[in-house]
Amino acid sequence: MTTKNILLLAGDGIGPEVMGEVKKILALIESKGLLSFQIDEDLVGGCAYDAHGVAISDAAVDKAQAADAVLLGAVGGPKWDGVPYEHRPEAGLLRLRKDLELFANLRPAICYPALADSSALKRELVDGLDIVIVRELTGGVYFGEPKEITDLPNGQKRAVDTQVYETYEIERIAKVAFELARVRGNRVTSAEKRNVMKSGLLWNQVVTATHKAGYEDVKLDHMLADALGMQLVRAPKQFDVIVTDNLFGDILSDVASMLTGSLGMLPSASLGAEDASGRRKALYEPVHGSAPDIAGKGVANPLAMIASLAMALKYSLGRPDLADQLDQAISATLADGYRTGDIWSDGFKKVGTAEMGEAVLKHF
Amino acid sequence: MTTKNILLLAGDGIGPEVMGEVKKILALIESKGLLSFQIDEDLVGGCAYDAHGVAISDAAVDKAQAADAVLLGAVGGPKWDGVPYEHRPEAGLLRLRKDLELFANLRPAICYPALADSSALKRELVDGLDIVIVRELTGGVYFGEPKEITDLPNGQKRAVDTQVYETYEIERIAKVAFELARVRGNRVTSAEKRNVMKSGLLWNQVVTATHKAGYEDVKLDHMLADALGMQLVRAPKQFDVIVTDNLFGDILSDVASMLTGSLGMLPSASLGAEDASGRRKALYEPVHGSAPDIAGKGVANPLAMIASLAMALKYSLGRPDLADQLDQAISATLADGYRTGDIWSDGFKKVGTAEMGEAVLKHF
Ligand SMILES: CC(C)[C@H](C(=O)O)[C@@H](O)C(=O)O
Ligand SMILES: CC(C)[C@H](C(=O)O)[C@@H](O)C(=O)O
Repeated sequence: MTTKNILLLAGDGIGPEVMGEVKKILALIESKGLLSFQIDEDLVGGCAYDAHGVAISDAAVDKAQAADAVLLGAVGGPKWDGVPYEHRPEAGLLRLRKDLELFANLRPAICYPALADSSALKRELVDGLDIVIVRELTGGVYFGEPKEITDLPNGQKRAVDTQVYETYEIERIAKVAFELARVRGNRVTSAEKRNVMKSGLLWNQVVTATHKAGYEDVKLDHMLADALGMQLVRAPKQFDVIVTDNLFGDILSDVASMLTGSLGMLPSASLGAEDASGRRKALYEPVHGSAPDIAGKGVANPLAMIASLAMALKYSLGRPDLADQLDQAISATLADGYRTGDIWSDGFKKVGTAEMGEAVLKHF
Repeated sequence: MTTKNILLLAGDGIGPEVMGEVKKILALIESKGLLSFQIDEDLVGGCAYDAHGVAISDAAVDKAQAADAVLLGAVGGPKWDGVPYEHRPEAGLLRLRKDLELFANLRPAICYPALADSSALKRELVDGLDIVIVRELTGGVYFGEPKEITDLPNGQKRAVDTQVYETYEIERIAKVAFELARVRGNRVTSAEKRNVMKSGLLWNQVVTATHKAGYEDVKLDHMLADALGMQLVRAPKQFDVIVTDNLFGDILSDVASMLTGSLGMLPSASLGAEDASGRRKALYEPVHGSAPDIAGKGVANPLAMIASLAMALKYSLGRPDLADQLDQAISATLADGYRTGDIWSDGFKKVGTAEMGEAVLKHF
């Protein structure tokens, strides 16, 4: 049995609590002899800044580079509102994405049947919803230069951010979307603002060309990003795979995840390119944030973090069977009526982080 | 009685049909002796391109500069997908916004009680919803330079868009938001991505400073734009006035308008600065698009266009009383059960564009 290298970056806020439940599952997998792990831990975000004065240390980035999978909890919180811009907690996450070239961010928006009623949308619009947003993660306005605030002669300031996309960046993310669609509903919707942005125009052209060159079996539509935002609210089930840039993906995936009523449940994967040996760098994290308001209270929902481990089992650890088993354990736990505060409603068992984690363990 | 200069730019798709109903109302207002108009018409969008080879002629822009209010229908459609980028239909609208310096885009998202059930959201979340998105409209990534696609030595292309904001641009839109909040719920939520964008950081700082310098009676919150997208879906009634940049405003206002179930009902105003005589340039248009699929069939909903005229009466024509009267006529028409196809459901009277317009006329 090969040993898999796992790096745990619990981060800030509720990160360490939800990561705690993942550790228990990793231990169970090992004790059952299903996989063997070499597990390391390190700091990212505000806690890294407190310890080292940077949002992630070079040593932690090196470990991430070497890992088969990085599991990340969450970063940030009001405690670090005043730290210098380049050391803010998010900078740790952004450096990981960039240094590991994790260009493909997969964000499933799934509505768990047991939770359909907690969606803001009418049940019939979200029941059975299963879409994936494929967000470009290492380009666009997040990393383009210049990115600066300068002083003007008149005493005012001028801030600039730059959205940059090159052909290859669009092509490789489009391929991820098409390939993912093939093992799902076989439909891709590409979103941009080609009517306003030159990068949107290039995006549209490259996605179209990539489609023609080998993916014509997949149905492709183009939609303006603002119209897509509307359609997500109006009729989300019309979509299968949505592919879009870094900034649109940030907002649209948040809207999509909120539709499900299952925000505390949703995982994400950030993947790099496959190397010659078929290995790809990868980071897995919940879609939810660090929730500083409930941190340390033992009430956070660990299911998104656990579902992130399931994605890691599937995409990085060569065990899609265990991924399915873990996903089923989550569903069974919900079917048993276990609910953390964020998804609780009358008639269900209100439990804390550890109880929820252990219920999943029992079903696994 | 002073004569008001009105420019009608019906545009493409359903634009001319919905504008037709506005003309009837303008005629009624004149015939009742309530206001006197000097009405001119011109082309914008695809129809302008077909006639003049540009998305708006200099002559039409000159008329818009001189008008007390410009009413615009809609621009665009698949017919013009292949025209050169600088002449695409949207370019006409963007030129009007820029040349007239219409920096403040007010987009109310109101849920008409009669239509609450046609929202995708549960009734209790949207019933009574009344928020306004104040979107910056002449800056940001829409107009920043460089904005180009260049050829790279490796045969690939590189697309660049530039998001630029200067202090004064943020300050003036923040003031519009604070002043609007004062005559509403007295709360402003400012949205940006300061954790990723330098323009978001400056936005946050300038809004905060503007608040301190004379608007501390208004409650101000800051929210990340992605989190705001989530909150709009989860609990939209928590907001009063939302102020944000051009691109976030584009997407978030579309999401917000779709929440209401009343997309075909929502107007918008784009306002310039007040000059020394208290006059400001202004353009009014529905939030919906040109809907080429139903154009020419006489079935489009004219209420958003009519509500845009109501906003013009309020903000540009000095007759808030007539604006209220017109808004009430719209509500009364809905209460009578009149519905165009987009908002129709079982048990209501299905009517076309003209019938709907005439029903409003009768109640006016
Ligand atoms: C924390 C922040 C930098 C990040 C982003 O904007 O990408 C987050 O919102 C996300 O979506 O992962
Ligand atoms: C038509 C288009 C250029 C425009 C925009 O992006 O601003 C539209 O979406 C809007 O919101 O008014």
